Amino acid sequence: MTAPRVTIKDVAARAGVSKGAVSLAFNRKPGLSEATRDRIFEAARELGWAPNPAARSLAGSRVDVVGLAICRPARMLGLEPFYMEFVSGVESVLTEHSCSLLLRLVRSPEEEAGLLESWWRARQIAGSILVDLRADDPRPAVAGRLGLPVVAVGHPSLTGGLTSVWTDDTTAVTEAVRYLAALGHRRIARVGGAAALGHTTIRAAAFDAAARGLGLAGAWQVATDFSGEAGTRATRSLLTAAPSDRPTAIVYDNDIMAVAGLSVAAEMGLRVPADVSLLAWDDSQLCRLTHPTLSAMSHDVHGFGADVARTLFGLFGEGGVGSHTVPTPVLTPRGSTAPPSV
Amino acid sequence: MTAPRVTIKDVAARAGVSKGAVSLAFNRKPGLSEATRDRIFEAARELGWAPNPAARSLAGSRVDVVGLAICRPARMLGLEPFYMEFVSGVESVLTEHSCSLLLRLVRSPEEEAGLLESWWRARQIAGSILVDLRADDPRPAVAGRLGLPVVAVGHPSLTGGLTSVWTDDTTAVTEAVRYLAALGHRRIARVGGAAALGHTTIRAAAFDAAARGLGLAGAWQVATDFSGEAGTRATRSLLTAAPSDRPTAIVYDNDIMAVAGLSVAAEMGLRVPADVSLLAWDDSQLCRLTHPTLSAMSHDVHGFGADVARTLFGLFGEGGVGSHTVPTPVLTPRGSTAPPSV
Repeated sequence: MTAPRVTIKDVAARAGVSKGAVSLAFNRKPGLSEATRDRIFEAARELGWAPNPAARSLAGSRVDVVGLAICRPARMLGLEPFYMEFVSGVESVLTEHSCSLLLRLVRSPEEEAGLLESWWRARQIAGSILVDLRADDPRPAVAGRLGLPVVAVGHPSLTGGLTSVWTDDTTAVTEAVRYLAALGHRRIARVGGAAALGHTTIRAAAFDAAARGLGLAGAWQVATDFSGEAGTRATRSLLTAAPSDRPTAIVYDNDIMAVAGLSVAAEMGLRVPADVSLLAWDDSQLCRLTHPTLSAMSHDVHGFGADVARTLFGLFGEGGVGSHTVPTPVLTPRGSTAPPSV
Repeated sequence: MTAPRVTIKDVAARAGVSKGAVSLAFNRKPGLSEATRDRIFEAARELGWAPNPAARSLAGSRVDVVGLAICRPARMLGLEPFYMEFVSGVESVLTEHSCSLLLRLVRSPEEEAGLLESWWRARQIAGSILVDLRADDPRPAVAGRLGLPVVAVGHPSLTGGLTSVWTDDTTAVTEAVRYLAALGHRRIARVGGAAALGHTTIRAAAFDAAARGLGLAGAWQVATDFSGEAGTRATRSLLTAAPSDRPTAIVYDNDIMAVAGLSVAAEMGLRVPADVSLLAWDDSQLCRLTHPTLSAMSHDVHGFGADVARTLFGLFGEGGVGSHTVPTPVLTPRGSTAPPSV
C-alpha cells in the first residue's frame, strides 16, 4: 500500500516545508497554519507516506496515547457517575496535550496485567493509569518490571511503591459517621462498594472504627456491586426491620445507590430525612437533581481524573509532582440529612 | 533500547515455540496456555524484542484499536448517561475481539476530521465510529477520501453514504406526542438537545409536524446543551407561565434533564403527574430510581453501541450487515405521565 522508499524528507520537499513541520503535522502539535497542515497531508497522501509509530516511539516521542483499563462489567460503566466523571477529567488533560485515551474493559487485574505488557511491548501506549487496586494486586509488579510509566489511583498501602494519587477515605468516612452521630443518629448503616477493592476495605475499617469510637447502638455494613439495583436491595433490606431496630441514617459508597435509597424510602412511605437520613458519596450532578436533594461527601471527581493525568505527564518529563493525595471529600449537607425524629 | 537485529524467529526459538505462537501472544489471540504466553513474553523481554506495529498494520492485521471522538465538553461526558451506556456497549463487543477503544474529546467536527486523518495515517486505528453528525459535517468526506472504515451513527440523510446505524427519531417523537395527546394533553413542550446536531433537527421537525397534525393548543420547543442544569432552567421557564398558559406535559431529549424537571416540579409545588406529566428519553437506570418513576421513550443504548461496533467489525471482514436502523425507542409508561387534572 505504501512505498517504503519514500521518506519524511520527500514529503517535506513536496510540501515545501521542513521535516520538522511534517513531524508537527503528524503529531498534531500546534504551530502550523491549517493550510500548511493540509498541504503536508496532501503531499504525504500523494507520495503514499505515513509515519512509522515504532520509529516515533523508539525516538521517545510517542507520548500521544495513555492507557486505562477498567475492571467493571461494561453495563456498569455506563451507570456509574464516578467513572465517567473521572474519565472526563483525564480526557480534559489529554486533550490539552493532543493525546488520546486507550480504553479497555477487563475482567480481572490479571488480564489487565497481561494487557499492560502487550500494550507496552507493542508501543501502543506511553504510560497507563491503574484504578481499583486490590490487596495482592498483580499490576504494580508488572508495571515495575516493564518500566512502564504508570500512576496508580489508590492508597500507597495498595500500590506497591508506584506513583500514587489517592483520596483519604479514612478521614472522609470518619467525618461522615461523626456528622450523622452529631445529628443524633445512634443506628447508622453503610452501603458499601465491592468488597474486593482496596478502597472499600479502607472505608469499611474506618466505618467500624468510627462506630466503635462513638459507641453507636447499631452499625451495619452491606457490600454491593455499586449498582442502583444493589442499592435498592440493600436499602430495602435495611429498612424492613422494626422501627426500633433499623438504621435512622444510611451512608452510601456512591451517589446512584443513594438515589436508589431515596426511591426505596418513598416506596415504603418513609420520609427523608424525618424518618431516615441518606448521605451520598462522590456527589455528581445527580445529588442536586433529586427531591429532596441529597446530602453528600463531595469531591471533584473530574478534577481527580485531571490530577491523575497531569501526574502521569509529570512522569514523562521532568517536574513530576510525585505521589500525593487529592483533597479529602467534604461534607455537603443538603435536604436528605437531619436529626432523627424518633 | 531494543536491539533491532533480533527477530520474531529468535524469540520463537528462545521460547521453544513457533513464530505463529509469538504472534498469537503479542496480538492477545486465544489458543495459548498462560505458561506458554509467559514464556514467550519472557523470551522477548530477555532478547529486547517487541513487535513493530507498523509492520503489523502493513500486513493488514492491525484491527485491535477502534477510534471514537466525541465532540462534547469533557464535563458533560461524565453526566450524560447516553454516552456512557453507548461506550459501554461498544466496549462489550471490542472486548470480545481483544480490541481497545481510542477515545478522544474534540471541540469540533473539523478537529475530529483532522484527528481521523492523523490516527489513520499513523496507523493507530483500524477504523472509527462517528457520532453526533451535523448538517454539512466534514467527517463523511474525509473518511471517504482516506478509505477509513467507519460506521456513522445517524440518519442516512446526515452521513453522506457511509455505513450508518440509526434510530428512527421521527417515529419515536411522533409516538411520544401522540401518547401525551391521547392522555388528553393539549399543551405540550419539548426540551430538546443541542440545535446544531442532525438528530435534534429531525426530532424538532417531527415534534412540529405531530403538534400541527394533532391541532394542539400549545406547543413549545427549547434547545439545550443536554445538561441537568439546562433541563432545570428550561423546565422552570416553561412552568412559570400562568396555569392556563403553560404546558401540562413535557417531553425531554434525554433522561438527566427529565430528572431535573421532576425536581423543578417538586420545588414549585406542582404534582407529577397530576399537575404536569414528564416523559424522559433514552431510559437509563435513572428513570427507575426516581419517585415517581419516569415514563420514558426507552431504547437499549448499550445494545445500540454494541450493534455499531459489530457493524464496524463487519466492515473489517466479510459478512458486514451494512446500514440499518436499531429498534425504534418504545414508550414505557411509568409514574410520571397521566391525564391532565385541569
